[in-house]
Amino acid sequence: MQDSPLIEPRELQFQLFEVLDALALTRRERHAEHSRETFEAAVEAAHEIALREFLPHNRLADEHEPRWDGQRVQVLPEVQRALRAFCDAGFTAADQDVAEGGMQLPVLLTQACLSLFKSANTATTSYVGLTMANANVIARFGTASQRHRYLNALRSGRFFGTMALTEPQAGSSLSDLATTATPLPDGRFALKGQKVFISGGDHELGENIVHLVLARIAGAPPGVKGLSLFTVPKWHVHEDGSLGERNDVALAGLIHKAGWRGTTSTMLSFGEQGRCIGELVGGPGQGLACMFHMMNEARIGVGMGATMLGWRGLRASLQYARERRQGRPPGSKDAMQPQLPLIEHADVRRMLLAQKACVEGAYALGLYCARLVDEQRTGEDAAVRADAGRLLELLTPVVKSWPAQWCLEANSLAMQVHGGYGYTREYPVEQFWRDNRLNMIHEGSHGIHALDLLGRKAMLEDGAALAVLGREFAATVQSAQVREALREHADALATAWADVERTVHALRPVLSEDAVRALANAHLFLEAFGHTVMAWTWLRQAVVAADALPGAAAADTLFYRGKLQACHWFFRWELPRVPPQLQLLRQLDDSVLAMQPDWF
Amino acid sequence: MQDSPLIEPRELQFQLFEVLDALALTRRERHAEHSRETFEAAVEAAHEIALREFLPHNRLADEHEPRWDGQRVQVLPEVQRALRAFCDAGFTAADQDVAEGGMQLPVLLTQACLSLFKSANTATTSYVGLTMANANVIARFGTASQRHRYLNALRSGRFFGTMALTEPQAGSSLSDLATTATPLPDGRFALKGQKVFISGGDHELGENIVHLVLARIAGAPPGVKGLSLFTVPKWHVHEDGSLGERNDVALAGLIHKAGWRGTTSTMLSFGEQGRCIGELVGGPGQGLACMFHMMNEARIGVGMGATMLGWRGLRASLQYARERRQGRPPGSKDAMQPQLPLIEHADVRRMLLAQKACVEGAYALGLYCARLVDEQRTGEDAAVRADAGRLLELLTPVVKSWPAQWCLEANSLAMQVHGGYGYTREYPVEQFWRDNRLNMIHEGSHGIHALDLLGRKAMLEDGAALAVLGREFAATVQSAQVREALREHADALATAWADVERTVHALRPVLSEDAVRALANAHLFLEAFGHTVMAWTWLRQAVVAADALPGAAAADTLFYRGKLQACHWFFRWELPRVPPQLQLLRQLDDSVLAMQPDWF
Repeated sequence: MQDSPLIEPRELQFQLFEVLDALALTRRERHAEHSRETFEAAVEAAHEIALREFLPHNRLADEHEPRWDGQRVQVLPEVQRALRAFCDAGFTAADQDVAEGGMQLPVLLTQACLSLFKSANTATTSYVGLTMANANVIARFGTASQRHRYLNALRSGRFFGTMALTEPQAGSSLSDLATTATPLPDGRFALKGQKVFISGGDHELGENIVHLVLARIAGAPPGVKGLSLFTVPKWHVHEDGSLGERNDVALAGLIHKAGWRGTTSTMLSFGEQGRCIGELVGGPGQGLACMFHMMNEARIGVGMGATMLGWRGLRASLQYARERRQGRPPGSKDAMQPQLPLIEHADVRRMLLAQKACVEGAYALGLYCARLVDEQRTGEDAAVRADAGRLLELLTPVVKSWPAQWCLEANSLAMQVHGGYGYTREYPVEQFWRDNRLNMIHEGSHGIHALDLLGRKAMLEDGAALAVLGREFAATVQSAQVREALREHADALATAWADVERTVHALRPVLSEDAVRALANAHLFLEAFGHTVMAWTWLRQAVVAADALPGAAAADTLFYRGKLQACHWFFRWELPRVPPQLQLLRQLDDSVLAMQPDWF
Repeated sequence: MQDSPLIEPRELQFQLFEVLDALALTRRERHAEHSRETFEAAVEAAHEIALREFLPHNRLADEHEPRWDGQRVQVLPEVQRALRAFCDAGFTAADQDVAEGGMQLPVLLTQACLSLFKSANTATTSYVGLTMANANVIARFGTASQRHRYLNALRSGRFFGTMALTEPQAGSSLSDLATTATPLPDGRFALKGQKVFISGGDHELGENIVHLVLARIAGAPPGVKGLSLFTVPKWHVHEDGSLGERNDVALAGLIHKAGWRGTTSTMLSFGEQGRCIGELVGGPGQGLACMFHMMNEARIGVGMGATMLGWRGLRASLQYARERRQGRPPGSKDAMQPQLPLIEHADVRRMLLAQKACVEGAYALGLYCARLVDEQRTGEDAAVRADAGRLLELLTPVVKSWPAQWCLEANSLAMQVHGGYGYTREYPVEQFWRDNRLNMIHEGSHGIHALDLLGRKAMLEDGAALAVLGREFAATVQSAQVREALREHADALATAWADVERTVHALRPVLSEDAVRALANAHLFLEAFGHTVMAWTWLRQAVVAADALPGAAAADTLFYRGKLQACHWFFRWELPRVPPQLQLLRQLDDSVLAMQPDWF
């Protein structure tokens, strides 16, 4: 699979075993049965299924959106076959206990496997991604009966799952959700309300669909504290697992999107006929807490999805740039000379290098965060686990938002490398670009994550998470400073980090006095902080590459030099964006606040 | 039309009469019959037809691409009706002599009128845009017979025109065009070759299609010097204007694009049966020179098209942000309080302000360049006309590329303001974004314009054009410096310009010694120079607004404050991108050149 359009095995090997020391995880009790061989076998199985079942229908599913035939939602049969292969190979339960039919893999490996499916076909993968998240919530908060009726069915692919949060009038503002849940004598609830943008909300891919619905129990307080979570199956499920009657959940419409067309997106009506029955998951008022249990992983998942689309664009444009000949070097006008491969033109190579820096950097960060989830769960002591949790909280807005923004930009560069052909639907890159545009919007929009990062995460526990990350930065800077080739970058990173810390310090008192003013430019903080984190991510990779280079075999030498050059490029071309942004933040620039709505 | 989704009359009035002094043009002999009233009547007629005939089918044409029915290319009937209305109102000949049936409008007014059609429907407008460019070339270089047979037919909408340059193996590299033209005994030529991405290449919108084809006469030298231009009509035209036999031009395929779907894009085969007859336009080997005659205007047109898509996104997202309520201010968690209109959230207002700065800045620059074309043609003396020509040469890469890049970004922000709804095809913004992506690719890609700007335009005549622009900058800086509110920005612009000049000075000797190295980062120069030009464009608008503000009526006060704030925002948030880019340029940063193809 060395020529795979998906992630190259060499890259995965570098991230898993050279940068993130995945083997250390096998020394923990939970993963003691695993080894490099079992990890690689899982990745290879994922790669093989992704190539065979997910990749071939990626464009087809874009061209043939799910459609309502008057009776049911029709999805391409290829989608169902791919999902069946995914479930049969056990990936739905990759990180679950062996005792429960899982592989007991670390989250790091689970995300690595998922990344292969996403790079092959992000829309088809989303059906199982949502189902896994749904099952994890039920596993953690569901009653014994709910776990019994749903878990195996969800993880075997008999049932699929959704997350039903958004309503027509409430997207970013979850506190305004209006769906109601009225208690019934038997302890269950009658739900009534409208949900919108529900991915996988209706289809015939399995026997049943289990919606996890946020709703407000009659009499509950307004705001997010009044929200509870409910299982609402499309078909009721008896204790023996057999299907009962149809529940009162109706498809109100299919949503037609710019991209990501292979995934059914729906408007759903709950309780139009007053007979929509749901069961509480977790306690009353615990709805958002239950949801947030899986939110960090879901957001890593969105970032990884964005990264994988970026990855495909990089590989496609790299291949095109090597094969397509066009033009000659600047200054050479001799039309009798053969034309150069595109990759020989500096500006094309810039567009490839920029993509590489975005995509491989984002990939390294996504896997690093997956590794933090493992550290949080199985780290050696409580202090390690707590610090991993803090880092994860702090980095979640970045690992979701940075790839969503910059791998979209990478996809645009991939189109540009293709010239006019890149704008046609005969080449795959325009679909990657359309698909990727969703990622800045869903699972918390860019602006929401900016507020979360500056207003909450950076300030939590008096900046404890920031301090933990600062120690990680210091360690990387220290190990890079002793390596001649990286000293300049180590110094630049130390300077950038000091600038970030100074900025947070300056904003902290303003935040309590005048939150509106302190947060007006939160977007700049997400950008500046994100770029600083990405520089650090690159320097960590560069340290590994620099150390491995002297004794490396020929092919590996090329690989490591590529890593070092991408790091170099990021520090030279991208990191300089940061200081002016942090300066505006410290100055509490009021250009935006001063703009009055009626001046537009 | 105050609530028009197209350009507001107030904005047009500001640009035409307050910033660009369009009335001064009526004091020139060529436009002496015109007045403010006739200018406004032309704009109002354009606005009315654009709203009535172009706007309503913009989405429809996106959803129903032109298709081949086995016999002909089918285009929506709405397109034909709109084009008929455009031609009947005389816009195809807006800037032509009255004696030839034109309106004898300045190019400034012609572009202002076209901008209204483009904002309503960029794909439908492109059919007439191409036809007008085609007619202008024939008017300038055609024989009496060609002018007689084609001009009236093209300008009345009986015939349509194309520009057939690109071939499958030669897009950016025109010197590699391979279509051949073999002389026939009667003075005409037999053409043979393939062309691709030919917009409007086949359809039944009029009686005939006149292709302007670049081809190489047998025995001509290789490279661009061997290219000649030919008229190749789909149907031959007799001297009396009646149609003769079908020419040997065949549709080889329709191209399916990511956006801009309303415009037929084709692959064409010339001379498959050896019977494709064309006539020379201009002299042998003069093909590219003839084409370049209309290239500057075409490129202003592309920039204006990008700007108009940006404009529509701004207006759509502004309306949405005023109507849609979501969330509460930071720090306010009381869910009983009503939700705020989106525009009250700082980050949403930032996205609107950023769009305004991009879109109105690009519009001002586009119209300024159109005004330069007038200056070049009817300026009072030879020196003025020559300097206008120099400025136009220098600014052409910017007026095409800056809007293509930044109004695309504006369209992405417009989607983001809409949240999940912006990603659906129920709202118009995702189409604007898809449509706009083409503009960085066609009419010279971004990278080609970067090479042109740094390698040629900035260096021409020992930097003469740069010196003329420097004088314009100095005049603006001087008039801004005496206005308290603008002094800071005037100083910033002077500094940025000095930085640009220093950079060009540093690169000049390198360019002759090592063109590859000097031009490796040309992309950065296009970006940095473009942003500096845009800052200047904003400062010019701000000077006008600041002067008008004290005595302005209430509604005008809001308008001028908006201009001043957008200027302020651009200087604070955007101009700081420039110094690090120019620094990398002066350092001849080799990050890209050092990256080896096999390191990817």
